[in-house]
Amino acid sequence: MDISDTSLARWLPDWLQRCAENTPDHLAVKCGAVRWSFADLDQRANRLARQIATLGVQEGSRVALLATNGLPYVACVHALTRLGAILVPLNTRLTPQELCWQLQDVKAMLLLSDSRYASLADELQLPDIPHTTLIADVAGNVSLEAIPVAESECSLRSLIDLNATQVIMYTSGTTGHPKGVIITYGMQWWNAIGSALNLGHQPDDCWLACMPLFHIGGLSILMRSVIYNISVVLHERFEAEAINRAISEDGVTIISVVAVMLQRMLAALDADHKQYPTVLRCVLLGGGPAPRPLLEDCARRAIPVVQTYGLTESCSQAVTLSPADALRKLGSAGRPLPPVQLRIMRDQQPAQPGEEGVIYLKGPTITPGYAERPEATTQAFHDGWLSTGDMGYLDAEGYLYVLDRRSDLIISGGENVYPAEIEAILLAHPDVEEVGVCGRADVQWGQVPVAFIRQRTGSDVQAASLLAYAAERLARYKHPKAIYFVEHLPRNSAGKLVRRELIKLLPV
Amino acid sequence: MDISDTSLARWLPDWLQRCAENTPDHLAVKCGAVRWSFADLDQRANRLARQIATLGVQEGSRVALLATNGLPYVACVHALTRLGAILVPLNTRLTPQELCWQLQDVKAMLLLSDSRYASLADELQLPDIPHTTLIADVAGNVSLEAIPVAESECSLRSLIDLNATQVIMYTSGTTGHPKGVIITYGMQWWNAIGSALNLGHQPDDCWLACMPLFHIGGLSILMRSVIYNISVVLHERFEAEAINRAISEDGVTIISVVAVMLQRMLAALDADHKQYPTVLRCVLLGGGPAPRPLLEDCARRAIPVVQTYGLTESCSQAVTLSPADALRKLGSAGRPLPPVQLRIMRDQQPAQPGEEGVIYLKGPTITPGYAERPEATTQAFHDGWLSTGDMGYLDAEGYLYVLDRRSDLIISGGENVYPAEIEAILLAHPDVEEVGVCGRADVQWGQVPVAFIRQRTGSDVQAASLLAYAAERLARYKHPKAIYFVEHLPRNSAGKLVRRELIKLLPV
Repeated sequence: MDISDTSLARWLPDWLQRCAENTPDHLAVKCGAVRWSFADLDQRANRLARQIATLGVQEGSRVALLATNGLPYVACVHALTRLGAILVPLNTRLTPQELCWQLQDVKAMLLLSDSRYASLADELQLPDIPHTTLIADVAGNVSLEAIPVAESECSLRSLIDLNATQVIMYTSGTTGHPKGVIITYGMQWWNAIGSALNLGHQPDDCWLACMPLFHIGGLSILMRSVIYNISVVLHERFEAEAINRAISEDGVTIISVVAVMLQRMLAALDADHKQYPTVLRCVLLGGGPAPRPLLEDCARRAIPVVQTYGLTESCSQAVTLSPADALRKLGSAGRPLPPVQLRIMRDQQPAQPGEEGVIYLKGPTITPGYAERPEATTQAFHDGWLSTGDMGYLDAEGYLYVLDRRSDLIISGGENVYPAEIEAILLAHPDVEEVGVCGRADVQWGQVPVAFIRQRTGSDVQAASLLAYAAERLARYKHPKAIYFVEHLPRNSAGKLVRRELIKLLPV
Repeated sequence: MDISDTSLARWLPDWLQRCAENTPDHLAVKCGAVRWSFADLDQRANRLARQIATLGVQEGSRVALLATNGLPYVACVHALTRLGAILVPLNTRLTPQELCWQLQDVKAMLLLSDSRYASLADELQLPDIPHTTLIADVAGNVSLEAIPVAESECSLRSLIDLNATQVIMYTSGTTGHPKGVIITYGMQWWNAIGSALNLGHQPDDCWLACMPLFHIGGLSILMRSVIYNISVVLHERFEAEAINRAISEDGVTIISVVAVMLQRMLAALDADHKQYPTVLRCVLLGGGPAPRPLLEDCARRAIPVVQTYGLTESCSQAVTLSPADALRKLGSAGRPLPPVQLRIMRDQQPAQPGEEGVIYLKGPTITPGYAERPEATTQAFHDGWLSTGDMGYLDAEGYLYVLDRRSDLIISGGENVYPAEIEAILLAHPDVEEVGVCGRADVQWGQVPVAFIRQRTGSDVQAASLLAYAAERLARYKHPKAIYFVEHLPRNSAGKLVRRELIKLLPV
């Protein structure tokens, strides 16, 4: 007997609207000195949605957003939901060239920016993609520059379709060019529920967001806020002293960080001879393998660090260590969240406990694929399982240890840097014959990219000149920190670059 | 762009199995002196599933269970999940006649009982529905009487299909005969998630279940245990002193009760000059409108009572008062759980705030319908909304006040009693011409059923004889507590019995 009516579990009452109905006066978001209740946020999202609608944005429209963490960002995310439009968050660290490529690739119909990025956005000058600026006044009202709020009531949605695309978020890969990961509302919902089942959910929770909202680790905090009906303390950027102050003064109970941030926070804490209050119940540590000394230091200080492993394709956390296991399984990323299935594959077979292999994921928090990249989607999935490309193993109790992110991925201060993208840029230089990029260990950033180059016969280019060439074309965090000239690059029998061999060529 | 792959959100890793993997040693259920960890429960469910499979039970088989709260019940619920079979929980208070009717109506292929109800089950003697007894030994092992555990590994499920039917649970209605409400795994999941978002979820929660597991309010606690990965303290029956002792000694954080239970618990507490420990964070009070003095008494004592409104068709809670509103909205059932939509309809139109009307519900926690009763299903649903038949209104802030359960429903000590069912029995008596049943207020039970009877001309039957007639054919809680002989019954112009007018005929 199939009595399924899947439509029942497909449409949920709008999350923000429910928060505004249930707890209109509860703090939704604090940013700087401005505090918005859920009623404030709800009203501002509706108002902004009506303005955006006057620009022709409707269901399925792709709207790019170039902005720093702030109230305009938050209002815009929810305004687009009310219109059924798709958010394309742009990494503010990208070069104009990189931004233009993404805007065109995603076929954005509108580019929104905040005031800080207004001139950069104007500079892009894409004929088919108009730019409008989001203006915030001192009272925290957000509106579109020079666009009157429509008098007419355009129809705003009061239900969320879990199957609908909320976001297209670009992430690079082995192919050189970034791909747009489809993130549905359902992925956000299931991810938030999985996280709450693992970490617990307290109605008075307050989540500090200091990671960029254009990354999934930041954006998903905004979604958890409205799914859980809890407060967010939003920081424009990471600044260790300000974060520590907020933890002490704003009743923060959960914070998401990457290792380099946590290291700086601890250093600032020591400089002030302080410690964190006990209401801070979870320091969610993602964005790549954490140095063991850092974990041990936190354990000594009784800082409740919870390691997690996730990626854009899994809508942030996929595997998380439960607080109860934090010490017993120090160094592990934990176990898959309740809705997620995990397996390690080695030579097309499930690996045995302790055996290394590629991490595969499956479940309702995993992306259905890459926007307009059917081949990339087909490549990434095997029998419904996403191949993450990352290496790891499970211990006898099924806890995941991530050995390395995919061999070609460099994680620098929590940002993913893809060698193929840097290689493609350098290869375009007239004096470069071959190039291979890999990560070099770095005390401050975890890793930084460096490039190995074989020059064209007869050329005599200088490293400084190549570095300047890359710097013009790549976001700062992708700039190679060194160029090494070599006679030949390590390649396998098929002629394919073997990047892990590059690491062995690094000067000791 | 429809990128939906609903199958991803349809299959979840088996809840109990995940608990056994994540926290094998964590207490799953304590019943009397026996404590089962999640690993224990997982193993016992698998073992029992293999035994049950030898009786021919497979996916979709309907297996009735006549048992009191206990470990055999818990093992059986999860064993049937592993087989994809459907549980039909039988109310142990029913008469043999009522049990036979339900077993035949649901076309059960097997009747399981515990030892206590083995002789009652044997008595039923239904030729097509064999009976087998679940035996628990002192160590808490549960097995089927005289059935060896199969040596061969039958295939057990490791994924749960949210669209699949878990349970068919009978509930009466206006029609006289009970109907089987379809309860899917998805309803349980969404209900548990909705409840956790509202009440909070703490990994060390411990939920006390003293309501019968054959009712949704009891059964859903077993589901929450494996969905949340938390402990259950299971009591065989409600006994106020034992419950109070468990709350003090077993670390109970949440308990589900009906008003009559809570009243007795408070009386026992006073007799012992005790109060509840602060770890008891939620007393979830359902099963009909709560007397205001009881709520005020609890408020004075700082007992965290949370009122809720729900029904079998909504898989328990549908509307719940959040703990933060408990005092401010005393007497309200609260607001719909996050996945649930609620509206009040009056003359086919949504009612205004403050205006009374019928309560309608919609969402993934609501039943898809009644098993093999397409007309009843069609009648109950309007445009995807379930008409509960219960009356209520929303205040200006959208909080639900339940005025009365459906006019024809009597709630006696938390059990639903349907006048039509009692009327149908009495009407079959040769001396009865007309009958009308309604509820009479009762200090102990909230309400008790009483019957108004017009005798056949010339007959001279005694009340005692009619009461004895009903007692033979109806479960004890449905026995009329009084018979009133009348000359005529209140009927509307269409000749339909107006039960609310009966109440006015009661002697003051």
